[in-house]
Amino acid sequence: MVYITRRERFSSTHRLYRADWDDEKNMKIFGPCSNKNGHGHNFELFVTVKGEVNPDSGFVMNLKDLSPIIKNKVINKLDHKNLNLDVDFMKNKIPSSENLVLEIWKQLEIPVKELGIQLHCVKVYETENNFVEYFGE
Amino acid sequence: MVYITRRERFSSTHRLYRADWDDEKNMKIFGPCSNKNGHGHNFELFVTVKGEVNPDSGFVMNLKDLSPIIKNKVINKLDHKNLNLDVDFMKNKIPSSENLVLEIWKQLEIPVKELGIQLHCVKVYETENNFVEYFGE
Amino acid sequence: MVYITRRERFSSTHRLYRADWDDEKNMKIFGPCSNKNGHGHNFELFVTVKGEVNPDSGFVMNLKDLSPIIKNKVINKLDHKNLNLDVDFMKNKIPSSENLVLEIWKQLEIPVKELGIQLHCVKVYETENNFVEYFGE
Amino acid sequence: MVYITRRERFSSTHRLYRADWDDEKNMKIFGPCSNKNGHGHNFELFVTVKGEVNPDSGFVMNLKDLSPIIKNKVINKLDHKNLNLDVDFMKNKIPSSENLVLEIWKQLEIPVKELGIQLHCVKVYETENNFVEYFGE
Amino acid sequence: MVYITRRERFSSTHRLYRADWDDEKNMKIFGPCSNKNGHGHNFELFVTVKGEVNPDSGFVMNLKDLSPIIKNKVINKLDHKNLNLDVDFMKNKIPSSENLVLEIWKQLEIPVKELGIQLHCVKVYETENNFVEYFGE
Amino acid sequence: MVYITRRERFSSTHRLYRADWDDEKNMKIFGPCSNKNGHGHNFELFVTVKGEVNPDSGFVMNLKDLSPIIKNKVINKLDHKNLNLDVDFMKNKIPSSENLVLEIWKQLEIPVKELGIQLHCVKVYETENNFVEYFGE
Repeated sequence: MVYITRRERFSSTHRLYRADWDDEKNMKIFGPCSNKNGHGHNFELFVTVKGEVNPDSGFVMNLKDLSPIIKNKVINKLDHKNLNLDVDFMKNKIPSSENLVLEIWKQLEIPVKELGIQLHCVKVYETENNFVEYFGE
Repeated sequence: MVYITRRERFSSTHRLYRADWDDEKNMKIFGPCSNKNGHGHNFELFVTVKGEVNPDSGFVMNLKDLSPIIKNKVINKLDHKNLNLDVDFMKNKIPSSENLVLEIWKQLEIPVKELGIQLHCVKVYETENNFVEYFGE
Repeated sequence: MVYITRRERFSSTHRLYRADWDDEKNMKIFGPCSNKNGHGHNFELFVTVKGEVNPDSGFVMNLKDLSPIIKNKVINKLDHKNLNLDVDFMKNKIPSSENLVLEIWKQLEIPVKELGIQLHCVKVYETENNFVEYFGE
Repeated sequence: MVYITRRERFSSTHRLYRADWDDEKNMKIFGPCSNKNGHGHNFELFVTVKGEVNPDSGFVMNLKDLSPIIKNKVINKLDHKNLNLDVDFMKNKIPSSENLVLEIWKQLEIPVKELGIQLHCVKVYETENNFVEYFGE
Repeated sequence: MVYITRRERFSSTHRLYRADWDDEKNMKIFGPCSNKNGHGHNFELFVTVKGEVNPDSGFVMNLKDLSPIIKNKVINKLDHKNLNLDVDFMKNKIPSSENLVLEIWKQLEIPVKELGIQLHCVKVYETENNFVEYFGE
Repeated sequence: MVYITRRERFSSTHRLYRADWDDEKNMKIFGPCSNKNGHGHNFELFVTVKGEVNPDSGFVMNLKDLSPIIKNKVINKLDHKNLNLDVDFMKNKIPSSENLVLEIWKQLEIPVKELGIQLHCVKVYETENNFVEYFGE
């Protein structure tokens, strides 16, 4: 079993808040992350898959097959977008990094399985000091 | 003459567009950077000052004096903000990295001079692949 | 279960040696790390915690609660200090990176549990080429 | 059980192709990685070992013992070499990153065990966007 | 005058040697860089241009215009190639980083001028420890 | 004229203070950097030299000639040392980064000139957020 990780990046805006909380409560819980007009990040996404090495190609899987899945299912929907308003799979979710890794996992799990390999980890860096990981359970 | 550089970071949202251009023209010039609901970055700011070394302290200037200037004049106004809507010194400016370095220079030039040293360069990284510098002329 | 990691930094001096060994033996085992007047590093600390995502906040836990614990229990005691002489929880320990991760774990395990989450990993980078991890067992 | 990781680097050329496939098939599977005259990378190798902390030294193992093993068994054979032509342990293997981690594991497993510790992970970065890991099973 | 820098990357093989020197002399001057079967790097290229900020767009120049020039004139010719054998503008040149920056400058100078701006610097990282810069004179 | 930069690293302890100032004044000027038992850093040193490209070798100068100069004159004296106590060329100097670049310049200027090239810049990173440069005047 060999693990392969692909890094992608997306530059997005988001705002952490709940419409059913007033400004004061949003500020208390989310602090400056609830700034009314949003703020943004250069997010880094690390997708790790695992599988056996195919002796014919020396590959677990061809990155030429994996990359377009990550691009189409995830990056194109998130990059240069507003995570609160523009992203179908984040609708009605607080766009925290925790919810991002959970929802990105859901986007990738089946298409990765269809390549004959397994999704192992979705990791998102929000800043150089904070990152979040999800392993599917 | 010794040059000292301090790195700071700010996480902001911005949108490149002109209100006097229609959506089509904005998209043609600014591409996905004109996304209506914005996008964002972890910007990195490098402020370089220069001066003679003070033989008493071994310092060109005390970073304890420089840091609060950068924080108060620049970072606190930009970090976790929307560069189109929330920043006094960016009002009515297209929030490109070029305009950011020009306006940050104006915020810092006089306060730095009052420390007895000179501002030498303002540099802003927008992504790991793009950065912009201004040397005051 | 989602994993969250916070990076912190501390700039410290240390010396690897045992008082009950003579200089020759210290030099043989620890090499230049046993330099009598010490040497130092910009250590990087990565603290990983894990827990369920709270559907109200979208957070596993609020970083505003975790950060002051890491600051108070660990960083403030290590940063700009001498790890051999200045740190209560390193007293009578050889300040190797291995002992650092073991002792930092002890400082953080209970306060993190009191937040309702679990400590998962303590990782310390000594240089860009060497790092050490401890998972609690 | 504490985990220790050492980073090493090697700058090598390689070409992904099979002699029993024609150019067209090689290009279809390996793309530009099958360029006839090769291409190259600054590979980064992370070797992770694990063991108990020796209370005498505060070390899991002395890096002065581990480093020469990695140098002699791996780095000296790979660095400034052609992975298709110059490396004994890659003979008749497609020099993919997957095969690199599998073969590097085989080079290191026994010598590391002879130090009284265990090899835990071999990780190879091919570019800043792609890396591969192997945990021995 | 504002300076803008764009980073690009290319993964190439090269060999430093002169056909008119024997192996011994090549080894004496170029060391392991003259390995007969080549070695390779993940090169990083930083292209810096300078110009006035256009008040209409807030840009010195549109990166959408600069990027394809760098791609077509330089990156597509170097990436996943052998710098000794595959690159028209390196023919009969020793593919040192010094010669790379000189020749990349020649490829870019006129096309950049045709955008109405000036080429300021070409910088190439060969490894994380070595880089070379050329400012056109 | 081509500029070549070599990065080296040294891990040292230092303390910013003046023996002719009392503790209170040292703390007021130098803050935690005056901690009595020292603190330390992984310093990064960037040495930039400049010269014409030698058409025989494609080199401005052979790094095999430059590296041992930097090692012998600077790194071996600083690495795994106490900058206040162990370094001949820092004797009676406050070991600030400013004084480091000035004194490193003095160590390197003549030996570099003897290689037939010129020293252009000495740059020292103290942390990822602070660096200092000296260009010889």
